[in-house]
Amino acid sequence: MSAQSEHAGSRPLSLDALVSLLEKIFLRHGTSAEVARVLAENCAGAERDGAHSHGVFRIPGYVSTLKSGWVNGRAVPVVEDVASGFVRVDAANGFAQPALAAARPLLVEKARSAGIAVLAIRNSHHFAALWPDVEPFAYEGLVALSVVNSMTCVVPHGADRPLFGTNPIAFAAPRAAGEPIVFDLATSAIAHGDVQIAARKGELLPPGMGVDSLGQPTRDPKAILEGGALLPFGGHKGSALSMMVELLAAALTGGHFSFEFDWSNHPGAKTPWTGQLLIVIDPSKAAGQDFAERSQELVRQMHGVGLRRLPGDRRHRERAKSAEQGITLDEQTLAQLQALA
Amino acid sequence: MSAQSEHAGSRPLSLDALVSLLEKIFLRHGTSAEVARVLAENCAGAERDGAHSHGVFRIPGYVSTLKSGWVNGRAVPVVEDVASGFVRVDAANGFAQPALAAARPLLVEKARSAGIAVLAIRNSHHFAALWPDVEPFAYEGLVALSVVNSMTCVVPHGADRPLFGTNPIAFAAPRAAGEPIVFDLATSAIAHGDVQIAARKGELLPPGMGVDSLGQPTRDPKAILEGGALLPFGGHKGSALSMMVELLAAALTGGHFSFEFDWSNHPGAKTPWTGQLLIVIDPSKAAGQDFAERSQELVRQMHGVGLRRLPGDRRHRERAKSAEQGITLDEQTLAQLQALA
Repeated sequence: MSAQSEHAGSRPLSLDALVSLLEKIFLRHGTSAEVARVLAENCAGAERDGAHSHGVFRIPGYVSTLKSGWVNGRAVPVVEDVASGFVRVDAANGFAQPALAAARPLLVEKARSAGIAVLAIRNSHHFAALWPDVEPFAYEGLVALSVVNSMTCVVPHGADRPLFGTNPIAFAAPRAAGEPIVFDLATSAIAHGDVQIAARKGELLPPGMGVDSLGQPTRDPKAILEGGALLPFGGHKGSALSMMVELLAAALTGGHFSFEFDWSNHPGAKTPWTGQLLIVIDPSKAAGQDFAERSQELVRQMHGVGLRRLPGDRRHRERAKSAEQGITLDEQTLAQLQALA
Repeated sequence: MSAQSEHAGSRPLSLDALVSLLEKIFLRHGTSAEVARVLAENCAGAERDGAHSHGVFRIPGYVSTLKSGWVNGRAVPVVEDVASGFVRVDAANGFAQPALAAARPLLVEKARSAGIAVLAIRNSHHFAALWPDVEPFAYEGLVALSVVNSMTCVVPHGADRPLFGTNPIAFAAPRAAGEPIVFDLATSAIAHGDVQIAARKGELLPPGMGVDSLGQPTRDPKAILEGGALLPFGGHKGSALSMMVELLAAALTGGHFSFEFDWSNHPGAKTPWTGQLLIVIDPSKAAGQDFAERSQELVRQMHGVGLRRLPGDRRHRERAKSAEQGITLDEQTLAQLQALA
C-alpha cells in the first residue's frame, strides 16, 4: 500500500485503527468512554473523507480545550421531550455530538410520527464539521437541516466590527440511485479551519475573505487570525443567513450567541460554547412520487446541464479511496497523535 | 399631500383604495372573490412597502397569465391534515397565496401544539414576494422559514446551462422592541423582477449577475431576459442553497421542479407552476429567556458593531411613510391599472 501513498513517509491506517487511536487520546484527556467514542468516530470520519480542516487537525484543539477545563468531557446530556415535534437537550457544557447522539432516537421517532421534528441543543460545544450530523438521517430516508453558531469572527455586512460566528448550514437528503445529497457551508466567505490551515502552510487567501485588525481587507490568514475577522459569503445575503443561524442555533435553543461566552480564564480553550438546531423531515409524508426518486431526477438534470461535481461528491470519492487504501497521515502527524494517546 | 409626492404627476392612494382597485382587476380577469382579495392585499402590501419589483409592476403579468388559461383563478385549495406536524395543500393549479391562507389556521395550530410544523404546497403558482408569506407568523410570535422554486433561469455553479429558478428563501422572527426580523433573498445573484425593472429602465446591471444566450457574462438585463440566464449568488454556496430549495419546494411537496412545466401552449403565461414549503416553529417551546427578548439582544449587538440597517428596515420605513402620505403611483401606471379594472 505504501507505494500508493501520496506523501513520502506517510503510513495508511484503517478507519478502526484511527478511531481507536483518537479514542485513547480523548480518554487520556478526561472524557467519558461515550464522549470519546462519539468524538473519535466523528473526527476519524472527517479525516477519512478528506475533510482535513475538521479531521485530526482538530485534535490538538480538543486536547488543549479539555486541559483548560473549559468543556466538560464527562458531561451527560439531558434530553427533554417537549412536544410531539420538539426535543431539547441540555448538553451540560459538554460536546454537541454526544448530545445529538443521546437525543437522536427520540428525534427520529418524532420526525416519522409528526412528519417533522426539531432538536434544540444548548449549552454545547461544536468543534467539528456539520455534515456528519445530518448525513446519517439521509441514509435513513429522512431530510435534515442543521445550523450551529460559533464564536465572533465575522463582520456583518454593513457593519464595522465582527459579531457573528462562521455559522454553517448543513443539509442532507436521500436519493434513489446514489449517495445522499449533502452539503455543509460556512456562512463566512471561508471556513475558520481553512484559514488556520492556510496560516500553517504560509499561503495567501483569495481576495474578499477577511479583514485585518484595523478592518482593512487582507489576504494574509495570520492577519485574520490575529485580531482580524472574516467576511460573510455573498455580501448582504450570506450575512442575513448568518444572522438567521444565530437566531436558530442560539435564541431558539437557549444557547449562547457567538459573542456571549468568555473563555479568557481558560487559556487553550478553542471550542465555542453555543447551541445547535436540527430540523428533520420525513419525506414519506409528502404528496407525489417517492422523494428519493425525485431527488435522483434533480441530480440527473444537474448533470444534464453540465455539472460534473455535486456537493459531497469529493467526500464520497475520498471515502471510497480510504476504504480501499487506508487513511494516510504523515509521519509527523501520526507521531504527534501517538504522543497524545 | 401632492406637494410631498416624489414624481411629477403622481397621485397618492390609500392602501384600501389600492387593494380595491387591484381586487377589481383580478375579479374582472376571472378570479374568485377570495383569490382576488388575497392577491390584491399581497400586491398592494408590496407596493406600500416600496418592494416595487413585486408591487403593481406585477399586475400585467398576473392579467396576461389569467388570460392565457395557464392558471386557475377560481381554484379551491384542498387542505390535507397528514400528521401532527405536517399539512399538505393541493393548490389545484391556482395561486400559492390562497393555498397558504386556506391552510394557515391548521398550520399555526400544529406549530403551537407540536412545536414545529411544515406546510407543503404543491400544484401552485407563486408570482409575488416571499416575505409577505412569513412576516405575519412573526407578528404572532412564531418563527417562519419559507422557500419557493420558480422557473429555469439560473445556471448551477459549475454547470453550463440554466436549470434552477431564482428560488428565494424567506425568514421571519419576532423581536421584543420593534418590528420582526424579516428577510427574503433570491438565491440568484439578482431577483428576476429586478432584472425586468432594469430592462424597462434601460439600465445596466452590476457585473456577475448573469450570462447571455451564449453563456457569456453580460451586464445587459435584456440579454439575460432574452435567452440568457442568471448566476447564483455567492458561487457554489448560493448554488447549493438553490438546489436545496428545489428539493424542499418541489420534491418534498409533490410540486414541479423549476424545469418541469411547459407553458408554451399558453402565450402570456408568466407564473411558475411549482411548489412552496413553509416551516413554522413555536419559540415558546425553547429553553432559556424569551425568544423575542433574545432576538432583540442580537439586534442591539448588531447595531453595536456599526450596522445601521437591518434586513426589512427599509420596508418598515416605506410602510410608515405610505401610512402617512398614501401610496404614490405615477399617472401612467395608475391609468394602466384603471384600464384593467
